[in-house]
Amino acid sequence: MSSFYNGNIKLSIFGQSHSPAIGVVIDGIPAGEKFDEAALKEFVARRSASNNSLGTQRKEPDEIEILAGVANGNFCGAPFAAIIRNTNVKPGDYSEFSHKPRPGHADYTASVKYNGANDFSGGGHISGRLTAPLCIAGGIFKQLLEARGIYIGAHHERIGNITDTRFDPVNITKDTLDNLHRGELTTTDTDSQDKMRALIEAVRADKDSIGGVIECAALGVMPGLGEPMLDGLENRISRLIFAIPGVKGLEFGAGFDAALLRGSENNDPFTYKNGRVVTLTNNHGGILGGISSGMPIIFRTAFKPTPSIFKQQDTVDLLTKENTTLTIKGRHDPCIAVRALPCVEAAAAIALYDALLDNAKNNI
Amino acid sequence: MSSFYNGNIKLSIFGQSHSPAIGVVIDGIPAGEKFDEAALKEFVARRSASNNSLGTQRKEPDEIEILAGVANGNFCGAPFAAIIRNTNVKPGDYSEFSHKPRPGHADYTASVKYNGANDFSGGGHISGRLTAPLCIAGGIFKQLLEARGIYIGAHHERIGNITDTRFDPVNITKDTLDNLHRGELTTTDTDSQDKMRALIEAVRADKDSIGGVIECAALGVMPGLGEPMLDGLENRISRLIFAIPGVKGLEFGAGFDAALLRGSENNDPFTYKNGRVVTLTNNHGGILGGISSGMPIIFRTAFKPTPSIFKQQDTVDLLTKENTTLTIKGRHDPCIAVRALPCVEAAAAIALYDALLDNAKNNI
Amino acid sequence: MSSFYNGNIKLSIFGQSHSPAIGVVIDGIPAGEKFDEAALKEFVARRSASNNSLGTQRKEPDEIEILAGVANGNFCGAPFAAIIRNTNVKPGDYSEFSHKPRPGHADYTASVKYNGANDFSGGGHISGRLTAPLCIAGGIFKQLLEARGIYIGAHHERIGNITDTRFDPVNITKDTLDNLHRGELTTTDTDSQDKMRALIEAVRADKDSIGGVIECAALGVMPGLGEPMLDGLENRISRLIFAIPGVKGLEFGAGFDAALLRGSENNDPFTYKNGRVVTLTNNHGGILGGISSGMPIIFRTAFKPTPSIFKQQDTVDLLTKENTTLTIKGRHDPCIAVRALPCVEAAAAIALYDALLDNAKNNI
Amino acid sequence: MSSFYNGNIKLSIFGQSHSPAIGVVIDGIPAGEKFDEAALKEFVARRSASNNSLGTQRKEPDEIEILAGVANGNFCGAPFAAIIRNTNVKPGDYSEFSHKPRPGHADYTASVKYNGANDFSGGGHISGRLTAPLCIAGGIFKQLLEARGIYIGAHHERIGNITDTRFDPVNITKDTLDNLHRGELTTTDTDSQDKMRALIEAVRADKDSIGGVIECAALGVMPGLGEPMLDGLENRISRLIFAIPGVKGLEFGAGFDAALLRGSENNDPFTYKNGRVVTLTNNHGGILGGISSGMPIIFRTAFKPTPSIFKQQDTVDLLTKENTTLTIKGRHDPCIAVRALPCVEAAAAIALYDALLDNAKNNI
Repeated sequence: MSSFYNGNIKLSIFGQSHSPAIGVVIDGIPAGEKFDEAALKEFVARRSASNNSLGTQRKEPDEIEILAGVANGNFCGAPFAAIIRNTNVKPGDYSEFSHKPRPGHADYTASVKYNGANDFSGGGHISGRLTAPLCIAGGIFKQLLEARGIYIGAHHERIGNITDTRFDPVNITKDTLDNLHRGELTTTDTDSQDKMRALIEAVRADKDSIGGVIECAALGVMPGLGEPMLDGLENRISRLIFAIPGVKGLEFGAGFDAALLRGSENNDPFTYKNGRVVTLTNNHGGILGGISSGMPIIFRTAFKPTPSIFKQQDTVDLLTKENTTLTIKGRHDPCIAVRALPCVEAAAAIALYDALLDNAKNNI
Repeated sequence: MSSFYNGNIKLSIFGQSHSPAIGVVIDGIPAGEKFDEAALKEFVARRSASNNSLGTQRKEPDEIEILAGVANGNFCGAPFAAIIRNTNVKPGDYSEFSHKPRPGHADYTASVKYNGANDFSGGGHISGRLTAPLCIAGGIFKQLLEARGIYIGAHHERIGNITDTRFDPVNITKDTLDNLHRGELTTTDTDSQDKMRALIEAVRADKDSIGGVIECAALGVMPGLGEPMLDGLENRISRLIFAIPGVKGLEFGAGFDAALLRGSENNDPFTYKNGRVVTLTNNHGGILGGISSGMPIIFRTAFKPTPSIFKQQDTVDLLTKENTTLTIKGRHDPCIAVRALPCVEAAAAIALYDALLDNAKNNI
Repeated sequence: MSSFYNGNIKLSIFGQSHSPAIGVVIDGIPAGEKFDEAALKEFVARRSASNNSLGTQRKEPDEIEILAGVANGNFCGAPFAAIIRNTNVKPGDYSEFSHKPRPGHADYTASVKYNGANDFSGGGHISGRLTAPLCIAGGIFKQLLEARGIYIGAHHERIGNITDTRFDPVNITKDTLDNLHRGELTTTDTDSQDKMRALIEAVRADKDSIGGVIECAALGVMPGLGEPMLDGLENRISRLIFAIPGVKGLEFGAGFDAALLRGSENNDPFTYKNGRVVTLTNNHGGILGGISSGMPIIFRTAFKPTPSIFKQQDTVDLLTKENTTLTIKGRHDPCIAVRALPCVEAAAAIALYDALLDNAKNNI
Repeated sequence: MSSFYNGNIKLSIFGQSHSPAIGVVIDGIPAGEKFDEAALKEFVARRSASNNSLGTQRKEPDEIEILAGVANGNFCGAPFAAIIRNTNVKPGDYSEFSHKPRPGHADYTASVKYNGANDFSGGGHISGRLTAPLCIAGGIFKQLLEARGIYIGAHHERIGNITDTRFDPVNITKDTLDNLHRGELTTTDTDSQDKMRALIEAVRADKDSIGGVIECAALGVMPGLGEPMLDGLENRISRLIFAIPGVKGLEFGAGFDAALLRGSENNDPFTYKNGRVVTLTNNHGGILGGISSGMPIIFRTAFKPTPSIFKQQDTVDLLTKENTTLTIKGRHDPCIAVRALPCVEAAAAIALYDALLDNAKNNI
């Protein structure tokens, strides 16, 4: 349990924030699939702080070293393995947190779980840094999906109270994704991007942090993907999305708003369009009964504000068993949601490719 | 894939709405645990339409027959198996939907997935009826958890635009759960329950349906339960929650509202209270880094309105490949959320007990 | 853990010897595959004592009741579930064994494992009776394999010191399997069958039992089936074979004899025959590196003699903590290997079909 | 599927013979367990060719680099990951085998399976080299077992026709294991070791190879370990044993000889000895019904002779589709069984520790 995903694809994610390396093993990539290493590195670089002035000042080169699973430029059927060395490590920053847990962090819960034997340095295994191997896996499956006409893209739908225009769940196309304004933030509008940036810089200046919502779309997904009950697309996506630190909510299609609607409003009528069955609206977010409908898959992920803020906070001292205060120093993103965007896409890609493999089994 | 859960606990849920029976196999219940069959039956009866005037008029006795796994009133270490016969079956009601898919239902998506070989009758395996075996499993784990001082309870936080008072995430106690107003709906206020009932009856009269939100709490959960990344408590709960038909959203603690907050607002300060570490607020919903903090676990699940409504709807005819209309007859709940309440508790109970077993492994 | 198989196929086997029913749930059968219920029942009947004068006198009708997974004569994509009621139960026979463990049985080991909470009656879950659901699963996959030109057949290669002519691992054909002498024993020679029968009747008359070896072949297996390392064909077959009570050994191809050979003797030279790559000999038993070679798959399974004998035996009394003696009464097969034959075929069928599904995933 | 083990312990083994590195990820080691890195390296070195004049002349330093999972000298609850760089690689040696498959090797079967996309170099992922990560995992669990009084040891019971004295399955003690004659071969007798060495050198001089049998014992295993049916100790051990290249047979206790015995000979009578339940004989090899009896666990593994021999052999040319001959050059062990000994111990250790974790779950 913990960092293994055991579907048609098997993932094993390992590493601690300050261990020699972090990495991932991926089993189940069909042999002979083309591997675009440059595209993978470009994808994973999107979550890197080095490229993002809104991120932490821990600047890690995040060089991906591929150890196994590739031959002659193709995936060779053997498990794929890759690592990233942890080079820019400052272990001294964290010693205090082993007994003075940071509010909003896993310091306390991990300490109890592991009876104090866990690696506190940099959050150990429970660290945003572990989303890099998740992105390696997701980046690979994203390229395998694209080769099948399935495109995944996300935008910052909200940072604090600043909202970007939502995706049109019916009319969104690959062009919509290609034309997103990608920078340190990714939005449909330039205007909202500027305001989000200003907000993040303001909270940073105020030694504070801010939350956000990422909306993700998967286009070109054929109908019939997913399983009923425990391995539906929502089940798979949700299990992977909640692997990203800081996620507190997830909704598909109309999501929580569907709870306010009547069936006559929420039901999406079927109709023929160019010989294909489509729906006129897309409150179902492309998934009915756990199975894709062929309409765009749309979901939104809520991120809490970064728990590491530089204001003084109340906490406890587990050694003295007294209340105390804590002032965090160090290098932290003021908004988790900023760099989490490729992680959301990665989670969706892993889930969808895994579901594709289930359907392939029907071609026995 | 599909109806198997493969954690420390293994679940296998089977059956179709109109097959001879539905049921569940549960492996992993420790031998020697006491089995309270009466309590189980009472729990599962809470989702039965027979007991609920707001539910479908398909009145099923839902008698649980235990086939294996029990000896001398205790779980005996062998897999537990139980079935419920499908007795009140009207297969004729459904023949039309194999080619005229009901909007908002899985008729179309399942038909594509299974190439038309799926069991259309009553929705087949993709049916709310399959939540009965989920409740059998959840009911068992709920009683095993209660024997360890862990209590799970849910209420209808919202039906359409009628809201019930939310649980107080800090001060909620077992008394709160014991004093919920339980009837066909379960609420903290009687007033909101009356209004919800009136709304549901109004939409039913209007041949329509309505959505809702269920809020669930788990109390008495010791800190340190759950795993980082892929098997955190949120990952496990979410995978099981999305197994309940009609769920479109899920949030923990402050959930989507956390996206609006600053870190200084959202972080829950630690403090000592009666010698125990607690937090002064509970925006984290009792889970940090996938691991329980000892605070109440709180989550909310959004249900869409029942897709089966009795108004005429637009759809397609897959045989003639033309647009057409459909008027559903038959017996359907006007609000899925009403009877889904024990299913939400069941999902939480399975996830938490599975996590407890992970921690037990540390006692090797 | 225990009675779940979690590959592409998921199996969940449940029941105790004297519980209301035993059964199996099977997930992963592709929708639309034709189900031949009569052929399944015929296959499972091969392990039934009712049809075998060499078996126990516990005559069970073993009627298979199908609960789910079938629609219109085809597998419908939903999990398949079937049960067999335990009708001919004499619980009184077993009460003594809860504290006076039978030598060679699991009475003692199960009692320790389950802290005495296990179901002792009839051996509980650890009973040859549980091979009936294994045969239900195997019988289904056997018919799905036959539809793809893959045939599985076994014979009693040895009962005690009486040997049957081994399969010719190179020249065996479907005709060989069709022409096996099938009766209560299954052999290539009639002569050896008579001698085996005489031996079994002699040991029965002597209140004793006898061991045996079953040799199994799978023909028509295309090359390229199986995975390296942990999910090779040998790994999968062995995991399922050792699920059959009484198995103490397993060998593929030349097996233990290969340990005596030189590489120049054991290596099977490749050659072209009718445009296909074959090997001139088949010491490898059709599997190289965990992957099928296209040659017949051949393996042998060693069964210990039935532990339940009617001679007086030494054992302990767990209550008084003293040595004592035990004389087993009741109804027991004098040779496990007799009725285990379809179980061996079932194990092979499950493993091979599961491997076929892995290869199907390459057709994504 | 393939190189993942998904029990309580999760293993992920990766690498190809000539990829940058091979390695393993292990999830499920309880946090706080002491890690003896020196003992691990010593254990893994036992399979290294560098230390064995009877092995291949490919001398690899096999330096283990630990990437994650350890903090302050203890396992920290995060997945453990370690790699070994492939340094002494001669890819040119293997190019011919991609179209001229070596008899007895997986060249042909892997080529078909992976449609020619597999990594042929050095056998790719299907290589004895991949047993090094298996030994890393096994070495760790061996030390965790030793801390609980469980000792695992193996000897070369047979090389070709030279036999070593078998373990006494009743009276074997830790002293027996401590006093094994360990050198390049491991035997109970010095005399047999000399003869085995002479035989291996003779077949090497003859450009040939030879098979062997390894017998393994696990001592101090408490009764009650293992699960019935699919996760019994035999099932688990067998699945792991068949992951070692070259294994063609496996037997527990009396094994294939049990097929020759009567129940009255094969049944092991229970008796009290020093207040503990033991058996007077141990034909059951310490396992009854998949569950440990407390007696020594004994099993034997048959290894085929190394398929790479230096004599000319018949094979096919997959490009020209004609028969041809092949003379292998390069560096190969003349007897797989020699260096496989720690791999067998590793497989046993993984299986037993995984079973221990199952029992720990009963301490919930």
